[in-house]
Amino acid sequence: MSVSRRRILTSGAVLAAGGLSAMRSSAVHAGGAALEIPDSMHEQGSPVLSPAYGLPSKFEKNVVRRIREQRVTDTESFTVTPLQNLHGIITPNGLHFERHHAGVPEISPDQHRLLIHGLVDRPLIFTMDDIMRFPAVSRVHFLECSGNSSTEWKKSGYHSVQKTHGLLSCCEWTGVPLSSVLGEVGLKPEGKWILAEGADGAGMTRSIPMEKALDDAMLAYAQNGEMLRPEQGYPLRLLVPGFEGNMNVKWLRRLKVGDQPWYTREETSRYTNLLANGKAYKFAFAMDVKSVVTFPNADRSFKAPGFYEISGIAWSGRGHITRVDVSVDGGKSWQRASLQNPVLDKCLTRFRLPFNWQGQPVEIQSKAYDNQGWMQPSRSNLIATRGTNPRYHFNAIQGWIVAADGRVTNASI
Amino acid sequence: MSVSRRRILTSGAVLAAGGLSAMRSSAVHAGGAALEIPDSMHEQGSPVLSPAYGLPSKFEKNVVRRIREQRVTDTESFTVTPLQNLHGIITPNGLHFERHHAGVPEISPDQHRLLIHGLVDRPLIFTMDDIMRFPAVSRVHFLECSGNSSTEWKKSGYHSVQKTHGLLSCCEWTGVPLSSVLGEVGLKPEGKWILAEGADGAGMTRSIPMEKALDDAMLAYAQNGEMLRPEQGYPLRLLVPGFEGNMNVKWLRRLKVGDQPWYTREETSRYTNLLANGKAYKFAFAMDVKSVVTFPNADRSFKAPGFYEISGIAWSGRGHITRVDVSVDGGKSWQRASLQNPVLDKCLTRFRLPFNWQGQPVEIQSKAYDNQGWMQPSRSNLIATRGTNPRYHFNAIQGWIVAADGRVTNASI
Repeated sequence: MSVSRRRILTSGAVLAAGGLSAMRSSAVHAGGAALEIPDSMHEQGSPVLSPAYGLPSKFEKNVVRRIREQRVTDTESFTVTPLQNLHGIITPNGLHFERHHAGVPEISPDQHRLLIHGLVDRPLIFTMDDIMRFPAVSRVHFLECSGNSSTEWKKSGYHSVQKTHGLLSCCEWTGVPLSSVLGEVGLKPEGKWILAEGADGAGMTRSIPMEKALDDAMLAYAQNGEMLRPEQGYPLRLLVPGFEGNMNVKWLRRLKVGDQPWYTREETSRYTNLLANGKAYKFAFAMDVKSVVTFPNADRSFKAPGFYEISGIAWSGRGHITRVDVSVDGGKSWQRASLQNPVLDKCLTRFRLPFNWQGQPVEIQSKAYDNQGWMQPSRSNLIATRGTNPRYHFNAIQGWIVAADGRVTNASI
Repeated sequence: MSVSRRRILTSGAVLAAGGLSAMRSSAVHAGGAALEIPDSMHEQGSPVLSPAYGLPSKFEKNVVRRIREQRVTDTESFTVTPLQNLHGIITPNGLHFERHHAGVPEISPDQHRLLIHGLVDRPLIFTMDDIMRFPAVSRVHFLECSGNSSTEWKKSGYHSVQKTHGLLSCCEWTGVPLSSVLGEVGLKPEGKWILAEGADGAGMTRSIPMEKALDDAMLAYAQNGEMLRPEQGYPLRLLVPGFEGNMNVKWLRRLKVGDQPWYTREETSRYTNLLANGKAYKFAFAMDVKSVVTFPNADRSFKAPGFYEISGIAWSGRGHITRVDVSVDGGKSWQRASLQNPVLDKCLTRFRLPFNWQGQPVEIQSKAYDNQGWMQPSRSNLIATRGTNPRYHFNAIQGWIVAADGRVTNASI
């Protein structure tokens, strides 16, 4: 089975890239040397079960969640997903972004309880066994912190897409439709809101509108097949698909049904946008239609002129992506990108566009559209509407400048 | 935000399960006590970035890949996926089954090369950078070892679904359509087969029919968003969706185009079924339509009479699942299970059926159908057709007996 230098040379010389005719031919750099038999073929590899729960290659050790900036404590903090290294739409559980208000509690599923009370006929306490006996549903949904890309409001951004857009991940979630469990406790007619409370040290609480609770909200206990990770709310979290990340309350221990929102700390002093006139914009729940190019990026870029595929992700908290346009001239002209199927509701959609780079400086942008009629705005349009006070829901078109040497920088800086 | 015993008691006593009317009400075991404030709410949790690449909860430490039985070496060996603990269709990368012929090589992506030669116009050597510049595609596909459930041919099976069916996993794979790369080297008209060779100590080789290579075969470099795991072929594997697991050659280093199959060791002495007449069945590539119930199982089962959801997975190497029927009386009568959307090609499909268990012994079975007209056979029908010589492609209906105490055993033993 070995391929000797002689065989390669006699079967037709390995050609240099210049000899190929297709547009993408420049992607192929054929070496002149024969293919050596690698060391790996001369020896036994590592045995199975080392470890029994597998980990990435040591060559991928830089593909990790990162802290964007140091905060006062490392429990009221967050980490960002390395979007620049990801492919497709699934985020592996080990790389899902984190946002905690009081760190990650360690909760035994045997001890965990969920109380549902308030304006209900039968207040009930559920064990995890109780919850996992309900009919289940599995769906792929993104989660985005409403503060994702907040750096871009005031051009205080970063060059790394991990730092500008990495408060975003996407998993297959399995759990129980919240409507099933609410049917079990029996809603009183005046119950219009639900307070969701986490079992962490912050007692994280948000008010959820009943319409969402009865639509596609879920009591989620699994992500990407296995039980939730501790930092994603193990053993139980609320999932309100498409809504602000923080409303998907982790370590969920209590749902109280009421007739109005609670105006908790996390929906007044935080997670509320201040408009230009000084008034707060009340309850912006759904994450807006948005997209970002993830290749090229500040870590991986064009290395020489020739064919490349521009790639990125698009999403909408209100429905599914219908179209993504890509510009390579800073928004002067646009081309329609291809969307990877299946295109799912409130889920990342991978888009791709072939690009033959001639080595000139370019500015790459992407613009997403959803099936609810929303279009991703330009930064100037977004600011004209909302001002620069807001910290949340930045969803403007992101530009990346690729210099003649391939270096990628944030166009908004 | 605390919920005192007083508040619970005054808002209406927590009811016992018997007070509920719905069929599924027996799933809810309401306690009489108030919900205590857990310790986790009195303290800060673990900080972010501990670790930067996340791991499952310590309470899930038993959810791991396992060795089914000891083999002569632990490099020519395999581990099985804990299907009894999984939900939805995605297998997290750390739990993807393994099957190695000479262990797991450690290959630097910078050093790795892919040679394509033989009956081609331009033999070429590709670096990983070259390959990753091609237009990419992402698809969710299962992988199944053709020896999966081989224990069931002779009733030498196990009670654990991890051991009977755990040579099966499902990921979102990203890579380059093999047809694109073959277009680059230029196929000669007489090229009808491709030899795929791995860079492991076994030099694992299989012959791939050109029709498959030009259809949906892929040079895959990512699984579930991140780069391949070492034990899945890092940095590059062949993906031939729906075909026997071993044909999806890992650590792929060479593709040779020829005019006929090579009859390598791994497609003659192994991975070929012996029929009852002593002749070998030549080239059974596609994995047959199949399903298995994963809940209840020998590790997690019914605990008391009442409502449960029977759940399992179905798949076909020839297309997509159109229907799964479930029996709770050992195959005498069948009910149609619901299928979780999206139902994808050559991909696991999660099926579910509600079941009100009265505490009697039952035998649960599932039977899958695909869009190519195939139906999962009974064990007796399969053996009538193929005999009991075969070691591969066992796809018969699997029965699980649930005893009155909830204990689950393999009905074929």
